[in-house]
This record gives sequence, structure tokens and C-alpha cells, in this order.
Amino acid sequence: MNMVTEPAFKEASFNIPSTMQAWVLGDPNQLTLAEKPVPQPGSAEVLVRIDAIAVCATDLEIIHRGPPAQIQGGLPFNKNFTPGHEYMGTVVKLGPGVDEYKIGDRVAVEVHAGCGRCERCREGMYTSCLNYGKNYGDMNKGHRANGFTTDGGFAQYAINNVNTLVHVADDMSDEEATLIVTAGTAMYGLDVTAGLIAGQSVVVMGPGPIGLMGVGVAKALGASEVILTGTRDNRLEMGKRLGADHTINVRNENAVAKVREYTHGGAHYVLECSGAPNAVNDAALMLRRGGRICLAAFPSEPVPIDVAALVRNNIYLYGIRGEGKSATHRAAELMKQKRFDAKLIHTHTFPLKDVPEALRYARERIDDAIKVVVKIDHPEGC
Amino acid sequence: MNMVTEPAFKEASFNIPSTMQAWVLGDPNQLTLAEKPVPQPGSAEVLVRIDAIAVCATDLEIIHRGPPAQIQGGLPFNKNFTPGHEYMGTVVKLGPGVDEYKIGDRVAVEVHAGCGRCERCREGMYTSCLNYGKNYGDMNKGHRANGFTTDGGFAQYAINNVNTLVHVADDMSDEEATLIVTAGTAMYGLDVTAGLIAGQSVVVMGPGPIGLMGVGVAKALGASEVILTGTRDNRLEMGKRLGADHTINVRNENAVAKVREYTHGGAHYVLECSGAPNAVNDAALMLRRGGRICLAAFPSEPVPIDVAALVRNNIYLYGIRGEGKSATHRAAELMKQKRFDAKLIHTHTFPLKDVPEALRYARERIDDAIKVVVKIDHPEGC
Amino acid sequence: MNMVTEPAFKEASFNIPSTMQAWVLGDPNQLTLAEKPVPQPGSAEVLVRIDAIAVCATDLEIIHRGPPAQIQGGLPFNKNFTPGHEYMGTVVKLGPGVDEYKIGDRVAVEVHAGCGRCERCREGMYTSCLNYGKNYGDMNKGHRANGFTTDGGFAQYAINNVNTLVHVADDMSDEEATLIVTAGTAMYGLDVTAGLIAGQSVVVMGPGPIGLMGVGVAKALGASEVILTGTRDNRLEMGKRLGADHTINVRNENAVAKVREYTHGGAHYVLECSGAPNAVNDAALMLRRGGRICLAAFPSEPVPIDVAALVRNNIYLYGIRGEGKSATHRAAELMKQKRFDAKLIHTHTFPLKDVPEALRYARERIDDAIKVVVKIDHPEGC
Amino acid sequence: MNMVTEPAFKEASFNIPSTMQAWVLGDPNQLTLAEKPVPQPGSAEVLVRIDAIAVCATDLEIIHRGPPAQIQGGLPFNKNFTPGHEYMGTVVKLGPGVDEYKIGDRVAVEVHAGCGRCERCREGMYTSCLNYGKNYGDMNKGHRANGFTTDGGFAQYAINNVNTLVHVADDMSDEEATLIVTAGTAMYGLDVTAGLIAGQSVVVMGPGPIGLMGVGVAKALGASEVILTGTRDNRLEMGKRLGADHTINVRNENAVAKVREYTHGGAHYVLECSGAPNAVNDAALMLRRGGRICLAAFPSEPVPIDVAALVRNNIYLYGIRGEGKSATHRAAELMKQKRFDAKLIHTHTFPLKDVPEALRYARERIDDAIKVVVKIDHPEGC
Repeated sequence: MNMVTEPAFKEASFNIPSTMQAWVLGDPNQLTLAEKPVPQPGSAEVLVRIDAIAVCATDLEIIHRGPPAQIQGGLPFNKNFTPGHEYMGTVVKLGPGVDEYKIGDRVAVEVHAGCGRCERCREGMYTSCLNYGKNYGDMNKGHRANGFTTDGGFAQYAINNVNTLVHVADDMSDEEATLIVTAGTAMYGLDVTAGLIAGQSVVVMGPGPIGLMGVGVAKALGASEVILTGTRDNRLEMGKRLGADHTINVRNENAVAKVREYTHGGAHYVLECSGAPNAVNDAALMLRRGGRICLAAFPSEPVPIDVAALVRNNIYLYGIRGEGKSATHRAAELMKQKRFDAKLIHTHTFPLKDVPEALRYARERIDDAIKVVVKIDHPEGC
Repeated sequence: MNMVTEPAFKEASFNIPSTMQAWVLGDPNQLTLAEKPVPQPGSAEVLVRIDAIAVCATDLEIIHRGPPAQIQGGLPFNKNFTPGHEYMGTVVKLGPGVDEYKIGDRVAVEVHAGCGRCERCREGMYTSCLNYGKNYGDMNKGHRANGFTTDGGFAQYAINNVNTLVHVADDMSDEEATLIVTAGTAMYGLDVTAGLIAGQSVVVMGPGPIGLMGVGVAKALGASEVILTGTRDNRLEMGKRLGADHTINVRNENAVAKVREYTHGGAHYVLECSGAPNAVNDAALMLRRGGRICLAAFPSEPVPIDVAALVRNNIYLYGIRGEGKSATHRAAELMKQKRFDAKLIHTHTFPLKDVPEALRYARERIDDAIKVVVKIDHPEGC
Repeated sequence: MNMVTEPAFKEASFNIPSTMQAWVLGDPNQLTLAEKPVPQPGSAEVLVRIDAIAVCATDLEIIHRGPPAQIQGGLPFNKNFTPGHEYMGTVVKLGPGVDEYKIGDRVAVEVHAGCGRCERCREGMYTSCLNYGKNYGDMNKGHRANGFTTDGGFAQYAINNVNTLVHVADDMSDEEATLIVTAGTAMYGLDVTAGLIAGQSVVVMGPGPIGLMGVGVAKALGASEVILTGTRDNRLEMGKRLGADHTINVRNENAVAKVREYTHGGAHYVLECSGAPNAVNDAALMLRRGGRICLAAFPSEPVPIDVAALVRNNIYLYGIRGEGKSATHRAAELMKQKRFDAKLIHTHTFPLKDVPEALRYARERIDDAIKVVVKIDHPEGC
Repeated sequence: MNMVTEPAFKEASFNIPSTMQAWVLGDPNQLTLAEKPVPQPGSAEVLVRIDAIAVCATDLEIIHRGPPAQIQGGLPFNKNFTPGHEYMGTVVKLGPGVDEYKIGDRVAVEVHAGCGRCERCREGMYTSCLNYGKNYGDMNKGHRANGFTTDGGFAQYAINNVNTLVHVADDMSDEEATLIVTAGTAMYGLDVTAGLIAGQSVVVMGPGPIGLMGVGVAKALGASEVILTGTRDNRLEMGKRLGADHTINVRNENAVAKVREYTHGGAHYVLECSGAPNAVNDAALMLRRGGRICLAAFPSEPVPIDVAALVRNNIYLYGIRGEGKSATHRAAELMKQKRFDAKLIHTHTFPLKDVPEALRYARERIDDAIKVVVKIDHPEGC
């Protein structure tokens, strides 16, 4: 496309096609690149031209098994559904009444636009929206969870409620911006568990993307000791580069004993991102009395837990879903201020046509993949 | 089971006219009874047939001077505006997607439906919505404040967002139900100031409707000492009937000294509902160190305040707007459980045609009027 | 003013002997009635003449196995230790600097006097004191947990830190006053889990003393639905008399299904007092998204828990120890105001000499015993 | 003095004299260098050898007029009182039961050791201790406020409760360590007002030491915009070096308008450290709806305040005393991690004998003095 110099309106510079390329889910594990209509933003919504999207373990889960929470309307298979939720891009069209963002703004996303009318949304807990998944048909409650209950970002365009957007700093690359939502989840976990964190000790269990971002955020906020536990030395090493004061390879060392040693008797907080079967029990033993655990991961089956240890030691346990309380905005700000280098966890990049390969790299951790990013070109200049 | 045929759907039983009677505001203090179209509920909204509405001091203010907060679009005069916000009624029509309420449900209201998309709404503080008043035209953000920025209840019908409704118990009269929002404001003030109130001492300054409901709520929640201050003995007497342990007529007694005596050195909380010029200074002196003041009223002009007393005594001061955090629901529940007798403050009743007289009774406190209620008949059986 | 001479100072009216009768623990389960010196109050302490003490399940545990939390100095056996922590009595002597209580005051107790110098005490979480049990010898940190780490109340006298006392209303019987600490534990559980409780639904699992008091407190604070679950109909019946809106015998009914029915989709809060192996899993299923569980009991062994259900549903879980944040004071106030009838759970009374029989009644639930109280006579007029 | 050579133990290495040099207050403004006994640490206390102390504006106030809060026992004049509270030093002797600190530890201080037994201390609000100043004679409640109600740091030695100490990093100079308590006050103000601060905007009014530290702490915690207002350009310039994004000289610019411009409609929080008569009114106008103000300073006389602006805009106002909730520990950690350069505000140094001159420099701001530090030599090697 031959782009004319833009005389005045920035808004005029985006040429939005009527259809787009989008990956759609058929049967479990079957993704096809399809041509879909470009969706239109409604009230409080914008159209985002997707520039980059990262692969999350939850995407693999959804493609393989369906989403973790029960959804009205059932499983996503064979419904023309486009997965993907860790994306960023450019605002190219505004729905009625939107002035929070301008056309041309670079934005990253969070997942949940609560319904705004249930008890939870009314108290600000929009990630626990009681109308989760009720976003269709006559009983549409307005809830959206992009890539979970509504079309997500393995595509050229997506609709976002203004509540799910955050500005991206000019000097932040597209790839780094896809990590804002990951850092936002870690930030939210620390908010919930450890509001005033400076000078206190944090154990992060599991050096996956959320765990590694948790290390960066905790240290940026002034945690005195940040201790990362895991099984793979290269991941632990990356944790050190993100600010961990200590790392513990649980295959070689007694993590509980080491944490108690490093923290002089027990940590203040544990951010559990491993999903390991014994994680809650270990966390309880790592904590000093009155400590708190945030659960950002979980094992797939029920596991034996020593409830007595929780009660005797006055431990609080917080299950969280996603990145509530606008934590993405706080995470984005820390990243904008370059308080930690989120880019370290971005390891691989693929184009939109290679999404299946990107997913495979992420799933099989090929070549030590951590965050695999899909970059989406818009060659026609739009 | 042999189910008797129901002659008609309950939904069908309301015969909604196309126009209605509504009081509209012309120039300041000019109210006219007009014929207006019955409005239609949109998404997340219902149409309420208004059965009763109480007069609030803020109504008098709005009719006389405009609303207390700055509103996009300016003053309400000569805009066909219908005031009134303390109403109750019957749900007669549902907007798309509404299943929170059924046709035929009796409901009372609160004022604020936040926009659901600003920073404050996103954290659950919908009474401080940053898009307050932006509910019109192309930039409609969805905010509503019935009787302030949108049409209110001195009329036969009104539109309500589902977020502004609360169920009314079957055995509660229409008149009593109009007081739910007043009790909700008092409840919210106590929530903010005094979350855990059982066994603690509360001073309520000013025996107006909110103050009197504050007495009832505080006592229902187990406050140890509830002390009401004011200038009129009959109002103070009513406070006693609502549960006040002590009353102080500030014309005859040194309120600060008496409060310190009754509370053995200083109260825990003050709910300020008087708007008296010296209220904040007096409250600071009534409190023990670390005490808290909720401001539910204010003087019309700046007043001298001893800031040093606030700092030296570690006092927190909370300005509140209305009845946030769903406090109306909690207040309605206490009233349903008959924990205090809100009906005591209802003193006068008028029909819709006599709204100006009702306002006059309220304004001039004729015949010791406290809460003046307008009952609205719907003689055609709808 | 003409003051009549008071024949004797109230302070002088207590004739404190130098020795007292006290039950002491030898080997596990061996209690002997011994003669011990009456202890002397230090700074911030008083001597309490014990008038009545209730048997708690934890007493049975301590006598049988030692206290639930690890204590510096090990197990309590053969150390001349006097158990018992749910007592009330009369202040008969003041330590230096005490003016919070007067000689002659009737008082009930809570267990924990934190050290006042650890991180937890400094933030007001004295039940999680990091110096728990460090109350002896050169390294005395000042922590006391009467009946756990220091001598308790199966005796004629005990020492109490002023922080562990609460005034008893004049018209409250000694027997009822022993239940303040039980109600305080329930109150604290509800504080932690469900700060603003009016209008919200609470499930209490387990109709033991704490659970039954939880029913009374929750209802007193305005909970909309209080649902009690258990296995014994007579206990459930007592729950109804204390205010439960619904009871569920889990032997006969599907408790999860019934709770979801009664609460229209899930309760707000669960107060778990049963220690049943599946309690956490059941609680998670009873709750609506974003619900909270307080653990006031626990199974003796690790149990399988579906962690995924906690995370997916944004559930928070709070292990609590005892009756923190001065909740006994709030509970005592509600009891003083006769908001619920705690006396209902008092079923049996024994004299001090029959402590072993009292323990047996409590342990074996003889004659449907709930709260067994030991009344202590002080025949010499002191 | 006969000092035994210490072969090995660090503990033995401090030769503590029986008397010391200390400045004592006679009539207002009369300080004399006197010889006083070195005090002995009691339970939970240590003896600190003072190595450096900074001058605070409150010291000048106390020396001139007495302390800001009412103290049992009245004014400090002619009572052999030693002022000074911003000090650091070395632990040289331990009271009974102390193992939180070792002999030889470098420590900085905070002011308040609450009584640990009043309602406020029990909830963790020890700076609002209800037994403030009750630390003497028969009714000693254990409260200490060094330099306010007990002897402070313009001396060679002082007693500190362990609750008032914080470790000093090895590579931090004595001079910098004296600023921990100042940074702790700013940190506490931000804790109270702005718990989750990353990505939010903070206005600091008044570039005194607390305000300047507030700039450093706010920026370290990730505030998006930190705006400093004041009247002196050199102070504002120092604010920039400590991290302020914008500074406003209120003599030249309309501070309210500029703040609203920089923050796109209003700031989130104001930390008021100026004590200017119109500070609260200006702060209210600088804030967006729902904003919060922390008052860390105050004018000496009552000032006119527009209470209506607080209520209409849902503004919360927090008066704070000192550096509660262990905020000094969090501030010390940020300084240890070199998140901001507190040393910038240290401008002058004097020896102990020149305390009057140090006070004069601080009072008259001679040579642009901000923080004037007194270094205390202990020439005999102790």
C-alpha cells in the first residue's frame, strides 16, 4: 500500500481491512489459519491491531483441554475460537464513547474485563467476575476474557474493552510489551500477598515466566531477600539476572532448610508458581509464623496438604486468577522505568504463520525456550 | 404435582403507559408537573414503577442551587430534569441481559451507577467515579446518578441500572423502604470509618436522617456506646429510641467534655452529619488518639480547622459521597432483620401531586418533619 | 459533698492465701490436685482469683499429647504445669503500673499475651508472636499463653497480663463469662474472613463450641444466611436456637448442594470448625467465586486438597490461632448486649475437685455435653 | 577508668564509662553540656553508644517550646532532659532477654516504643500509644519516645527499646544512617496514604528533609510521577536529584494548575510536609476524586479549610505521628539497596561540643543547611 503523508488526523492513517488472518481452534490441538471478519468495537471497546503475542502455558492448556475455569457455553472446540491472550498492538479504531485511548496508541493487554455489574466487579475484584463467560446472546452481561471466553490474539486484530488495556512506553519493544501481562500477574500476586514488601523476604517457587517476573517485581519493590527455587539451573541463573538474591535447585538442596537459613528463621511471603504437588506444604514450612502464600499455579490433581501446619502457624493462602486490581498498570510502569529487564525471558520469535511451531517450542521447551513470541506483520502498512 | 394454570405471566401484569407524570425543574425553585415519555431500559437497566420517594436535603439543594458536585453539562435548570433520589418501587420492565431482578420485584435504590471503566470504578469506589456526569451524547460513559445527573424519582417511572437496586423485604412498607438508601449512607460511613465496630464507641453529630440512621446501624452492629449530639431535644429523643446510649444537646452541655466522660477518655469514631462549622475541631477533641472521623456533611463555607490536632492525635478524616461499596444491601438486610426501627423517622406523607408541599415541609421542618415521603398511586392497576 | 466513710477499701477485702489448690500435669493424662504457691503479678500483670473455667478440646489435647504448636522448652509433662485457658474470675492483686483494672473487677480472659517486641506483635498480630513460648529464664521475652506455655486456670489463682483480660458485665453469670473466649475465637475468625458481614452468607462447618458461637456472632452482626453443617441433630438444633437460618446434617444431605441452593449459587464465607478431612474441599465448592474460608480447626493428618479449585475460584484461606485483634472484647460486648444466648452451650458443671470428671464428660460427650464448666469456690471469703 | 584487655569476645571490647557528656535543657532555649550517669538498659532494652545525630525541626521546637503532643508530667524544661531523636550508633550493652541485637551492631533508631498494652499498641499503631509519656514512677507503662519523653541523643549514650532499633548496613556512613528515621517517616506517610504506589502519581508539598526523602522513597517504589512543590529553587533542585519528575516553585507558578496538567487531571496522593496554611485546600484541588492526603506537617494556628471539597471529592486525610508500622525498616532497606541517595540532604557536620551551633545552622538555614549532623567522637576507643 502506498501510504500518503498524513496531513492532519492520526486517525486516518490506519487502513483497516474487512477480513483478517486468525488461527482458529477445531478439535483439541487442531489449529487452522483462517480468514475471519475483522471485528467491530462496541461501547467502551477498541479495535487493536495485534503486533506481537507471547505464548502462555495456559494457551497450550486451552488448545489441548479447554480453559481452566468452567465457562457458560462449554468447551471452546469447533466454535471458530481464536486463542491467545498475551498480546500487544496498536489501537486502530475506537468504539462509541472511548477517549481513554487514541488511534495510534501502542497498548498491551490484560485478560479480564469484568461484567461491571456482579458483586465481585462492584467491589473491584473483576478477575473473579460472577458472570465469567456470560458474554453472548440475549443474556450478554458484558464480561470478556480475551483468549478464554472471547477471541484472543493469535490473529491480526482483536477487540478489547478499554479496561483491559495499558499504554506501552515509546522505547519499549513489541516483544517486551507482550510480557507486561505476565509481570502484571506476578505484581498482583505480590500485591495480594505482600502489599508492603520493601525490607521483607519473598520466596518464588518455580522459575517459569510468572515466577521470573515475580523475582523482578519483588526486587524492584525493595524486597530484602528474594529467593527463587526450581529444578533447572539455567532458569535459576536467569532468576539471578532478574535480581534474585539466592537460588535453590530443589534437586540438590533442601529448599525448606535453605530458605529458613537465608531468612533467619522463615520467609515473609511465598509466591507459588510451580504447581508442584508438595508446594503448599513446603511453602508453609518455609514461612515464619503469620506468613502468606499466593497460589498462582496448582497441581492438576488433589494433593495431600498438612492443614494443621497452616492453622498452627497462622498462614494465609490466596488463590488468584490472573492479574487483577489493575496490576498490569503498575507492572508496566516498573518496566517503563527499567527496574528489571523483562526482555531476558524472551527467547524465541516466530511469524504469525508459524504459530503451531511457536506453541511447540513453548510446550516442549525446545532450545530452553521460556517466552516464545509471535510477531505479526501488517505488510500493507496498516 | 397438579399445578393450577396461571392466568397470565406475571410479566404481563404491568400495563406500562407511554407517558407519565413527572415533576420537572425549570428555573431554580420552579417545579412543574409535566407529562413525559416513560423511558426505556437499556442493557443492564430496568424500568422501575415508583411507588414512594422520600425527600432528602440534597433534593432541596439541587432544586435551589444545583447539585453539590460539578457536573459535565452544567446546572440542571431548564433541562426538563426530574429530581429525587430516595425512592422505591416495582420492577416492571427488564433491559437486555437482565436476570438479576424479575418483573414484579419490589426494589429500593442507591444513587450511583459508576461508569465501570474509570480507575475508581475499577477498584470498587463507584461513588467516586471519575466519569461522574458523563452520561449523554457521543461520549456517554455509562455513568448514572439518578436524581443528580439523570432523571430521578419525583415521577411515576424511572430507569435504574441493576447496580443501583436492592431487594425490599415482603413485609417492609413502601415508606420504610425509601429509607434504605439513607441507612445505606450511614452504613457506608461506618464501614469506612469503623469497620469492626462491636464494642467500640461512636459519636454521631447531627440528628438528621443520616445521623439517626447512623445511630440505628451503629447500635445494631454492636457499638458499645453510641452518643448522639444535636440542638433539638425531640430529635435527640428519637435518637434514643433508635438506640443511642447517650444524647447531648450542644446548646446546654459541653459536648466534648461529655463525650470524653462517657467514653472514658475519648471516642473511637465520629460520624459527622451536622455540617456545623466547628464539627471537625470538636470531633478531633472528642476522639482518643488514633480515632477516625467520617464526614457525611459539610459547612457551605471554608471554616477554621486546627490541623495540628489532627496530626498530633493521629486522626484520619474520610470525606464520603453517598452510599458506596454496596452498603445499601447491608443496611437493607439489617432493616429486614428489624435490628432498628427506621420507620420512626418517617413523619409525613403526601401524594405525587403535592411534591411542592412535601418539599416545603421538609425544608421548613414544619410540624417537626424529619422524613417526608411522597406516595405515588398507580390507579390504573399498573 | 458529704462522703460516707467506706468501712473498708475494696482492695482490702481479698484475703489472698500464700498457697492454693491447682491441678498439675505429670505424665500424659495424669492430673493431680496439688498445693502450689499463689503466684505474684509482675509489671503489666494482675492476680486473678479464678471463679469458673470451661473445658476446651485443646485442654484435652494438651493433657494427652502436649500443645498444638511447638514450644521452646518442649512438652508440658512432669513440669508442675497447670492446664486450662477458658476461665474467668476476679482481680485480687495488681502488679506495678496497672490501672487498667481495679481490685474486685470481674474479668474473663483470652490466651495470648504476645511478647510485644517481635515483628508480629509490632503489627498487632499477637497470636502469631514469634517469641511464642519464650517466657522463662534469662531469655524471657515476656510472651505468655496461659494454659499453654504458662500455668492456666484449673486452679484457684492465675497470673494474667492485662492484655489478656476483658471486663465481665455485672449481670453475666460466671458460667457464661467462661464462654467469652470461645465467642472471641469465632468473632476473630469472622473478622479475618468476613469483616463486613451484614447481608452476606456464612456457612459454619462443625457445631462444636466455636462453631455454635460462630453462628451466634454471625447472626448478631447481620449475616443474611447463616448455615450450620454437622452430623448430630441435637447440636444442629442448638445452632438454630443460636440463630442459624438453616442447618444441614451432612449424614443425610449433600451439604454442598444444599448450601448452593440456600445461597443462590454459593456462600460468601465459610468458618471451618469441624476438622473433617474433606472440609476444605467442601468449603471451596460451597463458596461463590472470590469466597473466603477461615480455618479454626484442622484434621490431624495431611488430607488431599484440590488446590486447583482454590486458584480457579479465587478463594482465600485463613489459618487462625486463637482469638486475636482483641476480638474477645467485641464478643464480650455482643454478649453483654444479649445479642445471642451463649449460655445455651453450657451443659454441665463440676467443682474444682472433680476436674478429671469434668474432662471426661467433655472428652466423651457424656450426656450430650457441650461446654463443661468447673466452678471454683473460695469458701474463706476470698 | 580501669579497662581490662579483651582478648577475644567482641562483647568485651566496649569500655563503658560510668558518666557521659550530655546536653541538658534548662529554661526554654537554654542548653548546657553536662556530665550525667550513663543509663543502664532494662528488659527489652540496649545501651547505644551514639556515633552521630541529626538535627530535626522538632528538636528546635522542643527546645524552644516543648514537645508537640501533651505529655504526662508537663513541659521538659529544667528537668535535666536531653533532647535529640535522629541518631545512630553502636550497641554496647544488652538488657536482660535481648538477643535481637548483638554488642557491636551498628543501629539507627526510630522514636516510639509503644507501651505494648494499650488498645493502639495492641493493634500495631504504636505511634499513637494511649500511654504516651507514661514512662516514669509507679505508674510506668513502659512507653518511651526518645528525645520527647525520655532522654534523647545529644549525648554520648542513650537507652533504646529493641523495638526502636534498625540495623545499619556496613557500607553506610554514620551520617547517612542518621537519615533513616527521616526516610522512615516519609515511607510511613506513603504506606498509610498510598500502599500500592507503583504507577501512581504523588505530590510532595514542602522540600524539607521529610519531603525530600518522600521524593526518594516514592520514586524508589515506582511512582509514575513525583512532583515536588516548594518556594526555594535550590531545594527543588535537590528534589530533582532525588528523583522528582517535576518541581513547582509555588512563588512563580500555580501549583494546582501545574499538578493537574502533569497528572492529566489530578494526582493520586499528596504527602504534605510544608505546614503551609493553605496546604490542605491546595492538596484537595490537586487530587483527582478519591485521592488521599497524608499530613506530616501542620500550621501552628487553625486555618480555613474547605471541608466541602473533601466531601464532594471523596478525599481521605491522614494525620500521622512519626514513623509507625516499622517503616524505618523498609526505608533502611531501600537505602541499603541504594535506591535513592539520602546523603544528598546532609549538608553540615559539627562535633558534640558544638550542638548549639548545629542547632543554629538548622534553625536559621545558614549556608542553605538542610540536614545538620552532629558527630560524636569516643576518643578513648570506646
